Amino acid sequence: MDKRVGFIGLGIMGIPMVHNLIKAGFEVTVYNRTALKAAQMVAEGATKAISPKELTLENSVIITMVSDTPDVESIILGKNGVLESIKPDSVVIDMSTISPQVTQKIAARLREKKAHMLDAPVSGGEQGAVDGTLSIMVGGDIDILERCRSMLEAMGKNIVHVGSNGMGQTVKLMNQIIAAGNLNATVEALVFAQKHGVDLRKAIEAVQGGAAGSWQLSHLAPCMIRRDFKPGFMVDLMQKDLRLVMEDSESMRVSLPATSLIHQMFHSLQATGEGKSGTQALIKVMERLAGIEVK
Amino acid sequence: MDKRVGFIGLGIMGIPMVHNLIKAGFEVTVYNRTALKAAQMVAEGATKAISPKELTLENSVIITMVSDTPDVESIILGKNGVLESIKPDSVVIDMSTISPQVTQKIAARLREKKAHMLDAPVSGGEQGAVDGTLSIMVGGDIDILERCRSMLEAMGKNIVHVGSNGMGQTVKLMNQIIAAGNLNATVEALVFAQKHGVDLRKAIEAVQGGAAGSWQLSHLAPCMIRRDFKPGFMVDLMQKDLRLVMEDSESMRVSLPATSLIHQMFHSLQATGEGKSGTQALIKVMERLAGIEVK
Repeated sequence: MDKRVGFIGLGIMGIPMVHNLIKAGFEVTVYNRTALKAAQMVAEGATKAISPKELTLENSVIITMVSDTPDVESIILGKNGVLESIKPDSVVIDMSTISPQVTQKIAARLREKKAHMLDAPVSGGEQGAVDGTLSIMVGGDIDILERCRSMLEAMGKNIVHVGSNGMGQTVKLMNQIIAAGNLNATVEALVFAQKHGVDLRKAIEAVQGGAAGSWQLSHLAPCMIRRDFKPGFMVDLMQKDLRLVMEDSESMRVSLPATSLIHQMFHSLQATGEGKSGTQALIKVMERLAGIEVK
Repeated sequence: MDKRVGFIGLGIMGIPMVHNLIKAGFEVTVYNRTALKAAQMVAEGATKAISPKELTLENSVIITMVSDTPDVESIILGKNGVLESIKPDSVVIDMSTISPQVTQKIAARLREKKAHMLDAPVSGGEQGAVDGTLSIMVGGDIDILERCRSMLEAMGKNIVHVGSNGMGQTVKLMNQIIAAGNLNATVEALVFAQKHGVDLRKAIEAVQGGAAGSWQLSHLAPCMIRRDFKPGFMVDLMQKDLRLVMEDSESMRVSLPATSLIHQMFHSLQATGEGKSGTQALIKVMERLAGIEVK
């Protein structure tokens, strides 16, 4: 396979992902709205393009890693976008987390140009991007995935094909529904125990090996206890993902009672200026509700 | 320590626990409301008492393993109960799951007789009871726990002292808050994915290794997918525990928004005759809400 790739979106995730592609021997052309970050990557061996359209002229695989649905739409479908110059049999790999339904729409537009799409959102956060250990959930044609596998393997470890276009995004949102629900359950339990004066460290030790065990409990409850609210994953990003879940649940007519409630709880954190905190700050909302004052 | 113990309550948990005590060399006297089950244990080497009071005359350690708060109250505080014949320095170990606040009240009554109490509820279910691998969360005086440790080790593995009387029960309820929340998150995510036509097995494979990982996802989602609703843990018992959580959250003034919602969702299962199903049947409620018909 071609060792050239175009990469659009140099945020906290995109930069380390490009690093790992360069390290694995790929020739990377980058585009970013903020030119400064692109210049930085050029210093490390990347080439810079002045628009998604120009980047696409020179590459037959284009990766997008941006914030939200409208960003992907504008990069691919907008003026000077990918669609204007894409060649037949090229592949767009969107690794952002965006709407499953818009993903299907974009894939259809690319298909009209005889190009392919993979939706390949990731989990594992900044650390996973740096370490090249991201989990990647892939929707799209499995042959196209196989063609791009070595490239994805430069950035991630657990690469799973989950279905057709849009389904990578659906599974990513599923991941967020569970992560938010498990986090909230942990928070309600800790506040309940705290109100009873239980030693929370001992309580976690007692329950985490059994039916209450979860990644959220093991990784985030200790942060809550030592009042460490540094972001592993930011509240604002969780809220963006839960907004996608809510929009999708509305159009698909699927009721998600607890997820919807938890989305509202997170609003309370955003209302008090905690949008940039880690999701474990959710315990502050539940403490407020329980009338617990923490110094 | 004394190798004699009195055991009250021969249900699905109590019977295998008595087996394990006998196997570990303890002389067990049993009492059960339904005499038939006691007779069965006598055939296996136990002695039978005709009342909690009589059982207590002959034993200085008494274990109770019954269904609910009023059962424990009547066995200990009621007519012909434990309190009528308990000797100073005896120990009552309540391994049922009951109200933390009633536990404190019972402990105080025992203290008046210079007797001790441990609240030592378990998790791990019937299989854990059979295998002798129950997790045991202990509230009460740590010296008393040490005195009874070898007895508890005949029945369980992870024995953790979590605080004073009532705190064992509080941590058990905390365990149930998390288990119910994680289960519900799993269910909402699966129904969301199902509505999008995702292959659920692949989706679970993609997410269970990361931030969405939990015991509930790994153990119960596969049951849901193969429509296996046999009880690992019964809906009716989860509802009893969540009722204890709700009563306690009311009297302690602690808000548990999602736990309360999930308690209501489980009512829907009880309303359709699924009280004896495993908790994983919760997916049926969410499928109904989403208008999904499953053959």
